[in-house]
Amino acid sequence: MISRKVLIIGGGQLARMMAQAAPSLGIEIRVLASPSDTSVLNLAEVVVGDYRNVNDVLQAAKGVDVITFDHEHVPRGVLEELLSAGHVLRPSPKSLELVQDKLHLREQLAKWGVPQPKWHGGPGNVKDMVRDFLRTGVAWPLVVKRSVGGYDGKGVWVLRDDSDLSSLDGVESPGWVVEEFCEFRQELSAQVARSPHGQGLAYQVVQTTQVDGICTNVIAPAPDIDEATGIAAQRLAMELASKSEVTGMLAVELFCMPDGQLLVNELAMRPHNSGHWSIDGAVTSQFENHLRAVLDLPLGSVKPTWPYTVMVNVLGVNPVDESVLNHVLAHDPGARVHIYGKEFKLGRKLAHVNVSDSDPSRALARAQHAADRLSGTIR
Amino acid sequence: MISRKVLIIGGGQLARMMAQAAPSLGIEIRVLASPSDTSVLNLAEVVVGDYRNVNDVLQAAKGVDVITFDHEHVPRGVLEELLSAGHVLRPSPKSLELVQDKLHLREQLAKWGVPQPKWHGGPGNVKDMVRDFLRTGVAWPLVVKRSVGGYDGKGVWVLRDDSDLSSLDGVESPGWVVEEFCEFRQELSAQVARSPHGQGLAYQVVQTTQVDGICTNVIAPAPDIDEATGIAAQRLAMELASKSEVTGMLAVELFCMPDGQLLVNELAMRPHNSGHWSIDGAVTSQFENHLRAVLDLPLGSVKPTWPYTVMVNVLGVNPVDESVLNHVLAHDPGARVHIYGKEFKLGRKLAHVNVSDSDPSRALARAQHAADRLSGTIR
Repeated sequence: MISRKVLIIGGGQLARMMAQAAPSLGIEIRVLASPSDTSVLNLAEVVVGDYRNVNDVLQAAKGVDVITFDHEHVPRGVLEELLSAGHVLRPSPKSLELVQDKLHLREQLAKWGVPQPKWHGGPGNVKDMVRDFLRTGVAWPLVVKRSVGGYDGKGVWVLRDDSDLSSLDGVESPGWVVEEFCEFRQELSAQVARSPHGQGLAYQVVQTTQVDGICTNVIAPAPDIDEATGIAAQRLAMELASKSEVTGMLAVELFCMPDGQLLVNELAMRPHNSGHWSIDGAVTSQFENHLRAVLDLPLGSVKPTWPYTVMVNVLGVNPVDESVLNHVLAHDPGARVHIYGKEFKLGRKLAHVNVSDSDPSRALARAQHAADRLSGTIR
Repeated sequence: MISRKVLIIGGGQLARMMAQAAPSLGIEIRVLASPSDTSVLNLAEVVVGDYRNVNDVLQAAKGVDVITFDHEHVPRGVLEELLSAGHVLRPSPKSLELVQDKLHLREQLAKWGVPQPKWHGGPGNVKDMVRDFLRTGVAWPLVVKRSVGGYDGKGVWVLRDDSDLSSLDGVESPGWVVEEFCEFRQELSAQVARSPHGQGLAYQVVQTTQVDGICTNVIAPAPDIDEATGIAAQRLAMELASKSEVTGMLAVELFCMPDGQLLVNELAMRPHNSGHWSIDGAVTSQFENHLRAVLDLPLGSVKPTWPYTVMVNVLGVNPVDESVLNHVLAHDPGARVHIYGKEFKLGRKLAHVNVSDSDPSRALARAQHAADRLSGTIR
C-alpha cells in the first residue's frame, strides 16, 4: 500500500483542504489542532494540542514522514526542537524566518536586491522610527507593521498623518517596519511550488483585492496585465523560492505600480488564499502540490483548465441558515462552494466560492453573488 | 454553521471519494465500515460494524440526516428496519430492489417496455432454464447470472455451449437470469443524478470497457457515437431514474448494438466506476452530486471541462513500492492519480488514473501507461 504520512501544524481551512486532496495520492494526514479547530474534525487524524508547546508538537510528530504548516506562528524554539529530534520540516525553520519576521524579510530582500517598498525598521521606539523615516523624504500616509505575529491585517496600521500615531500607543513589539504607502495599480500574487529536489512550477499570476488587509477576491489570471509583467512576476517568485530555499507552496504578494514596476509586499510559505481558485481552475490544486512538494514527489501540472477562475471569500456578516446554501446552489449550478466548517464570527473567513467562466467580469459577478448570500450580506 | 450528516453504508473507494467531496458543502460523513475497510480510515467518522446486522446499522444511523450506500448488498430486512425506525434512505429500498435482484430488474424493465437483451429466468433449476431458453430460438453463447449477490463479474457465467453448463454445478441461488450474449459494438454508460424534489441531470454518455466483467477503462464522452445515440442514452437513463424513483446517482450500463439499438445491461444506484472521470473532467463530480442529491440540495453542473477525459482502473497485478508513484507523477504531470488506500490483492481495484486531453487516443495511452505502472503490469 502506498502511504506517506504528513503532520500539519494548525487545523484551519488550509489543513482542511490539504486533507481533502491528500487521499488521492495515498497521503495520510495528521493535524495538530487546538480544541476549537472544527475545520479538520473527522477529516484527518486529529491530535489536540498547542503548537507553542514543544511536548505537544513532538508527540504529534511521532512516526510522520514530514511536518508542514497551516500557519506560520510556530515559535522558532519549537521548530528547532523538532529539527533536533530528527524531524523533517518543510519549509525549513530557516526559510520560515522570512515569513515569521517582517523586519527580517525586508532586510533579506534588500540584501538580495529584490524590489520592495521603501522602508525603515528595527527594534526600538516606533514613533521615533516614523519620524526618522519621514526625514528621508517619504511622505504620509505610512504603513507600520509589527515585525511578528500579524495576519489578515492584524498587526498592521495605516497612518494618514501625525495624529494617527496615537493608535500605536501601548502596542509592544520586538521590532517594527515602517513603509511607504504604495499607490499601486493592482495587487498581484505569484505562486510557485518548489520541491526539495529543486523542481519549481509557477501558477498563472493572479490579481488579489484586499479590504482592511483581508483578501476579498482573486481573479485568475490577473486581467489587464501585459504578458511581460506576468512573466516577470513568475520569475521573481521562482527566484525568491530558490533563494529562500522554500519547500512547498510560496505565495509572493506584489504591488504592481502605475509604471508596471513590481514591489514585493509579503510572502507566505504554505497554500495561500490567493491560490484557492486552483481547486477548480487548475489541473493540480495548490493543496495537492504543497503536499507533493513537501513529500518530494514530482509536482503536478499547474495549467489552468478555464480561461478565468474567480475566487470570492465568504467573510461572516450575518449568521445564515442552511436554506441559504440551497439558494446559492440552485441559483448557479456552476458555482463551486468550499465551506470551512467553522462557527460564525463577524468578519471570519467561513468559506470561499470559485466560479470559472470565459469572461472575468461575469465570473466575478457570479462568485460575488454566491459569496454575498453565504456571508449574509444579502438576506 | 452549515452542516448536514450523511451515513454511508460500506467503506470502500466510493465512500472514500464521497468523503473527499463532502467537506466543501459542509457535509459530515459517517461510514459504517467493516474492520478490514482501510479506504475511509481518518477520512470520516468511522463506525465499525456489519451492514447485515440490524443493530449495527441502527447504531450507526443515530442522528444522521440521510443514509446512503457504497454498495448494494444491504439486506432487504435491514433496509426495512431502518425505514421503520424513521430513517431516510436514499435511494429507497423500493428503488434498490432493481439493483439488488437481477431477475426483478429484467421483469421490471420488461413491464416498462425498456429495451434489454432477450432473457429467461426465475427461481428453479438453472440448467432447465438454459434448455428452455435455447428452445425459444436463442443460440449459444449464453450469459447466466445469479439473481442476487454478484458484482464485478462475480455471480455471472458466460457459457459457450452445453459443456460449460458444468461450471454451474453446485452453485445455489434463489433465482437465475439467462440472457442472450450480446455482440455489441460498444458498451456505454449513461449516468444521471436525481434528487427527491425531482431534479435530474444527465452526464455526458461514456464508453466503458470490461474485461472478465470488471471495468478497465472509460472514455468520456464515448467516441464514435452519433449525437442521436448519446441523447437517446441520456433520455433512457433519465426515464429509468424517474420510473425507479431513484435518489442519488444512477448509472445505466448499456449495450450499443451494431444497428445502434441500446439495450439495458445493468443499473447501479450510487456513484459508479463509469463516473470516476468526473472528478477531474466535469464541473461537479458524481461524488458531490450523489451527496447533493441524497440531501435534496440542488444539483451541480455536470458540464465537461475538457474535450475528453479518460479513466483507467488500476487492478493489482504485482505489488509495487512507493517509488512507482514517483515515476508516474514525474512521467506525466497531468495524470490525475486517485489511490484507494487498500492493501494489494491480485486483481483488486487499488486506484484509478484520470487524464484529460483534446485527443481521446492520447488520453487513453497516457492514462493506461500510468495505470500499468501503478498496477505492476509494467515493472
